[in-house]
Amino acid sequence: MRKLLVIGIGAGNPDHVTVQAIDGLNRADVLFIPDKGAKKNDLADLRRLICDRFVTNPKSRRVEFDVPVRAEPTSSYRTTVDDWHEAIAEIHETLIRDELAEDGCGAFLIWGDPSLYDSALRILERVRLRGNVGFELEVIPGITAIQALAAAHATALNRIGDSILVTTGRRLTEEGLPANAGSTIVMLDGKCAFNTLADKDVLIQWGAYLGTPDEIVISGRLGDVGAEIEKVREEARRKKGWIMDTYLLRKPGEPKE
Amino acid sequence: MRKLLVIGIGAGNPDHVTVQAIDGLNRADVLFIPDKGAKKNDLADLRRLICDRFVTNPKSRRVEFDVPVRAEPTSSYRTTVDDWHEAIAEIHETLIRDELAEDGCGAFLIWGDPSLYDSALRILERVRLRGNVGFELEVIPGITAIQALAAAHATALNRIGDSILVTTGRRLTEEGLPANAGSTIVMLDGKCAFNTLADKDVLIQWGAYLGTPDEIVISGRLGDVGAEIEKVREEARRKKGWIMDTYLLRKPGEPKE
Repeated sequence: MRKLLVIGIGAGNPDHVTVQAIDGLNRADVLFIPDKGAKKNDLADLRRLICDRFVTNPKSRRVEFDVPVRAEPTSSYRTTVDDWHEAIAEIHETLIRDELAEDGCGAFLIWGDPSLYDSALRILERVRLRGNVGFELEVIPGITAIQALAAAHATALNRIGDSILVTTGRRLTEEGLPANAGSTIVMLDGKCAFNTLADKDVLIQWGAYLGTPDEIVISGRLGDVGAEIEKVREEARRKKGWIMDTYLLRKPGEPKE
Repeated sequence: MRKLLVIGIGAGNPDHVTVQAIDGLNRADVLFIPDKGAKKNDLADLRRLICDRFVTNPKSRRVEFDVPVRAEPTSSYRTTVDDWHEAIAEIHETLIRDELAEDGCGAFLIWGDPSLYDSALRILERVRLRGNVGFELEVIPGITAIQALAAAHATALNRIGDSILVTTGRRLTEEGLPANAGSTIVMLDGKCAFNTLADKDVLIQWGAYLGTPDEIVISGRLGDVGAEIEKVREEARRKKGWIMDTYLLRKPGEPKE
């Protein structure tokens, strides 16, 4: 039986890697690395750096592969994602079949944690359902951008005894701040959705490139720092060519009991 | 200036420790270990084991201390927590003042991640506000039980593009399943609050002692496995004398767009 490891490698700081992840990286015969070849970018480089630094298994091979670009959502966001995942599942199936021996072990390296807004587990489930290659699956957790954000701000995510909503920029724009959670963490927000909120007294704790030397953090009352974050974010994105950011919104005061 | 490191050491598996945490453990002159002396328990032992295994700094000292027990909540849960935190803040202030040199570095080891349902950051903020000892604070993120749960079940936490609510057993009982999140993660639930839910078609993915050799996982339709989880949980708690568990509830189907 083939074995697949899905390994969380942290939010961008190579030191986020766990002892368990290092062990996993070294158990694998093949490390599957997305973003093949010419496409130079910081994130692909950082993934290679993590392999260079922590992989000591001399028998380990790296196999780089292209990831198809997702189409712009047309009628339905989920249908678009569906088509895209099916295309990636086909590539994964081929990689597993052609690059791994029948009893081989392969590893996929995932930014953050495989369980949070990442498609690898869903795609491998598709591969399994296609029925052409069998495998055992093992997931190794990793530090997420949420934890890196909280660490950068030295803050707790939750108010005492209160709930936390983890959501997307798209949903924050549509639904506003939730009534059932004192803290809201927003991920996958390319459009500064926080600036659509009516309540400007909310506290925002924002961070980009978290855990890396380029880390930027800004926090304060939304009405005071919202425009500044948007400006700093756009400048950083233009300068580096990409940005990864996330933020925490917290209502003032303590939860009612 | 004294330096304090608040280090997330993972959810119970020593291999959850990150490279950054190991570095932090070794930068500290003093490791502050709660649960002094006679009180033998698995968690205190595991913390010592993590120190034994990863601390190589010969100058590092361990200082064990007692943590006062929280009173049973009387009129107000938050007032009870408030009094308790103030008592711990006093202990922390004394430790920092008496055990650390003016330019010394001390570390607090936190289960999971310091940002999630943990009081260390709030307590150190109290110490700072008391104004008797000054310090710089650095937070090092750790793997949480949430990630260990998702890894154990090899599952994503969120449905595609959907939100996640992280909440407590107490709130789940009072508020039921949220309408604004497809997935709900419940922590701090000593009373199997999932069995109070009306909708028995919800999927539950439950885990205890996550990441440890004693790990137990059960998943299925709430109506099918809810009673079994309660039984297994009670037996395990009686046998070991303690239990740490968490679970994910997910509505059937996919989110509406």
